[in-house]
Amino acid sequence: MFAASVYVSRRRALVEQMASRTKEGARGIAIFLGNVEAPMAYRGNDYKFRQDSSYIYFWGIDEPGFAAMIDLDTADEWLYGNDVDMDDIIWMGPQPTVASKGELVGCAKTAPMSEFFRTVTSAVAQGRPVHFLPPARYYNQMTLAELTGMAPSAVRKVAPMDADGGRHASEELVRSVVALRIIKEQVEIEEIDKACDLGYLMHTTARKGVKPGVLEQEIVGAMEGVTLSKGWGVSFPTILSQNGETLHNHSHHQIITPGRLVVVDAGAESNSHYASDFTRTYPCSGKFTTRQREIYDLVEQANNLAFSITRPGMTYYDVHLAAVGHLLDGLKALGLVNGDVDEMVACGISGLFMPHGLGHNMGIDVHDMEDLGEDYVGYDDDQKRSPLLGLGNLRMARRLCPGHVVSNEPGLYFIPALIEQWKREGTDKGFVNYAKLEEYYGFGGIRLEDDVLVTADGARRLGSKRLPITSAEVEEAMAND
Amino acid sequence: MFAASVYVSRRRALVEQMASRTKEGARGIAIFLGNVEAPMAYRGNDYKFRQDSSYIYFWGIDEPGFAAMIDLDTADEWLYGNDVDMDDIIWMGPQPTVASKGELVGCAKTAPMSEFFRTVTSAVAQGRPVHFLPPARYYNQMTLAELTGMAPSAVRKVAPMDADGGRHASEELVRSVVALRIIKEQVEIEEIDKACDLGYLMHTTARKGVKPGVLEQEIVGAMEGVTLSKGWGVSFPTILSQNGETLHNHSHHQIITPGRLVVVDAGAESNSHYASDFTRTYPCSGKFTTRQREIYDLVEQANNLAFSITRPGMTYYDVHLAAVGHLLDGLKALGLVNGDVDEMVACGISGLFMPHGLGHNMGIDVHDMEDLGEDYVGYDDDQKRSPLLGLGNLRMARRLCPGHVVSNEPGLYFIPALIEQWKREGTDKGFVNYAKLEEYYGFGGIRLEDDVLVTADGARRLGSKRLPITSAEVEEAMAND
Repeated sequence: MFAASVYVSRRRALVEQMASRTKEGARGIAIFLGNVEAPMAYRGNDYKFRQDSSYIYFWGIDEPGFAAMIDLDTADEWLYGNDVDMDDIIWMGPQPTVASKGELVGCAKTAPMSEFFRTVTSAVAQGRPVHFLPPARYYNQMTLAELTGMAPSAVRKVAPMDADGGRHASEELVRSVVALRIIKEQVEIEEIDKACDLGYLMHTTARKGVKPGVLEQEIVGAMEGVTLSKGWGVSFPTILSQNGETLHNHSHHQIITPGRLVVVDAGAESNSHYASDFTRTYPCSGKFTTRQREIYDLVEQANNLAFSITRPGMTYYDVHLAAVGHLLDGLKALGLVNGDVDEMVACGISGLFMPHGLGHNMGIDVHDMEDLGEDYVGYDDDQKRSPLLGLGNLRMARRLCPGHVVSNEPGLYFIPALIEQWKREGTDKGFVNYAKLEEYYGFGGIRLEDDVLVTADGARRLGSKRLPITSAEVEEAMAND
Repeated sequence: MFAASVYVSRRRALVEQMASRTKEGARGIAIFLGNVEAPMAYRGNDYKFRQDSSYIYFWGIDEPGFAAMIDLDTADEWLYGNDVDMDDIIWMGPQPTVASKGELVGCAKTAPMSEFFRTVTSAVAQGRPVHFLPPARYYNQMTLAELTGMAPSAVRKVAPMDADGGRHASEELVRSVVALRIIKEQVEIEEIDKACDLGYLMHTTARKGVKPGVLEQEIVGAMEGVTLSKGWGVSFPTILSQNGETLHNHSHHQIITPGRLVVVDAGAESNSHYASDFTRTYPCSGKFTTRQREIYDLVEQANNLAFSITRPGMTYYDVHLAAVGHLLDGLKALGLVNGDVDEMVACGISGLFMPHGLGHNMGIDVHDMEDLGEDYVGYDDDQKRSPLLGLGNLRMARRLCPGHVVSNEPGLYFIPALIEQWKREGTDKGFVNYAKLEEYYGFGGIRLEDDVLVTADGARRLGSKRLPITSAEVEEAMAND
């Protein structure tokens, strides 16, 4: 938890943001639902508690069963939660009062949760705008639907509040929250640096575990153990797979096999709930084959190129295009595609080889604020999302500003089912050399990812040390592991 | 996953159970909702997937987005799920068809999820009974409410289906499922034995980590890493605390301090989703003080006593009473209570020192089937739950049968806030020696737990080896760690 002043100034800035987007005298209230416990098996047997990210940002309290409200017309702030009784003390131990928790985050007014419910239903009854964010958790979705009388699907829909009486989540609140959370404060950058250092440790543990004959799950357990020992846990479900061509592969039942590649895409969430997210790709036998190295070096170059042009004023859309242009250039040299690279980029040929975007925003969420709507978070008002595979999957396209934190994660994949589909449907418009490409079936995929802060005049890789990334560094590290 | 025949015979037995509880020709349908992914932060950033326990038991499929239905009038069975498209292949890899998954669990008829929704709404429209279990997950609660037109709170309520048109969860289905799941099959016992062996490894890792100066979280991370390396993960949130007097303490921010005790209550869930659950209590400095040993030995004796009388025909209610009787006997010898032990047991004086029950059922859930209703699961029809603290918290009271798997977890705790309350309110009726008891403020708590199978003529501790448990064994193990 940061100093109370951090939360106070964030909420003050939020009130100002909302004032610029709503009408004086009829601004209504903004409500914030913290998370409750999430049942794993039965209710009461819960996953490790994770607070709602926007609740952490504005209200700091990292416990289940809290809510909050800001009256946008009066700037009145209330924190809601229930004090403990003897049964809670027996099972969970003595707890500070809600009032004392309010003090820690600079909120003097506190009340029980029943008062929160009463406040929301009474605002609804009075026809005052009730601004809320689209809820990530199903419990909060159900609760908001019950409190407001809306359908559960409506409370996840984001639209301007004055368009239809506000029977949905608030676009004004989404835009206000995004405007604040997307620019990281110095205290946040320090926490992300720490999360990156923990990610470094996690990935080093993984790399040391990559030895022929080892079950993938053994490596995943060891690296996740590290995140739990020193942080909250993983910032997203670990991807560790020799089928690297599958972008989000969460099965870990294969044995590390010489000659294959293994993609490790994993990150740590610090105890303060900031995320890191790195990807490295290792040769299972400790040495790359010539073909693996050719593709690997291309991806590494694309990563470095993207980083070198990441700076304020540049859009991440253009950084993505530059990176995939480099990849296509290299694939052309290898004889996998033919034709003009600029034309290929424009036609989206890179989507066959890299069906994802170059990166995403990062912060309290590893894909920061993704639940508020990817286009609100990752696109400026004058930008439009491409319909192309790959570029259309770009989560962060914005014109870069100091304080943006983004991932930089180019990759190359050989996905037989996708290649066969493009071939069958002629999607490549003749640019692809399928005869050559078939030789890469079974290759898998390569992705290399760092976390990057946009600075006043350029960019800085986050974390104290960069994970080994050149093919030579990787082989050397593996030889010494 | 077990052989298809296991699931086929479980479902056949369920149909028979339901036939004995419903009217021929108007039995209706029984529906089963598997789990979807559970969002951790934003939707799409999910906790590790955990299937619904009853879904695992009857339908075996360990993936999100499945449902199933049995027509109780015709014994027709349907498995529902959606086949993958190209987008799924890119992100999650190629997947077997739903039809082929049906074959693995002996269900020949499969259809997309849309057909499941249609089937349920049409049964509701026709007025056929729709039997479902109270859902653990909020998503399933919301889905059932939408499908049936009930309030979200109604679908968690369990009652007989013919009482009020069945606008709630089905008591008949709950009783049928409990009747089957509570008696473990041989294939299940083998899996629980494996989960216990993994629990042994987890606890051994913990014990080796208990050294003065170590952060509790470091130990928790190491032991949870073991469960992730070799199993699904933890079977419940790990309790590792020097404030052992708090029964479910999940904060791990203290440093291991010489002179204190640390309670480690933790279990592993195997990859096949069976649970273990053990508790050991360690002296942080490696040696018990005299006072600690006196209390420790008492708890160990109570554990052994309980195990020695655990056998078919005995109720676990009586086993609980015998165990707490022994504890009170010992506390009397130490001068902490005075009076007749039988009278103290009857008055519930033990609740002050052990405010929880002796144990619970175990299986696919660590508190097996707790979400179906503790009284349905843990109490026979002729048993009533006590209103007393401790005995009233007993989750498993039933007359024991071969195939029951239960935890055996006596404990002694010194909870200052609770002691002060009893003293203030005279709850102890004069049995407690408060002057002496105050000397134990700051002592913490001790709990010792094994997992036990009721056999044909007695009981067997599950797992290949028992964790060191006598005070001498514990000190010796710690000296060698």
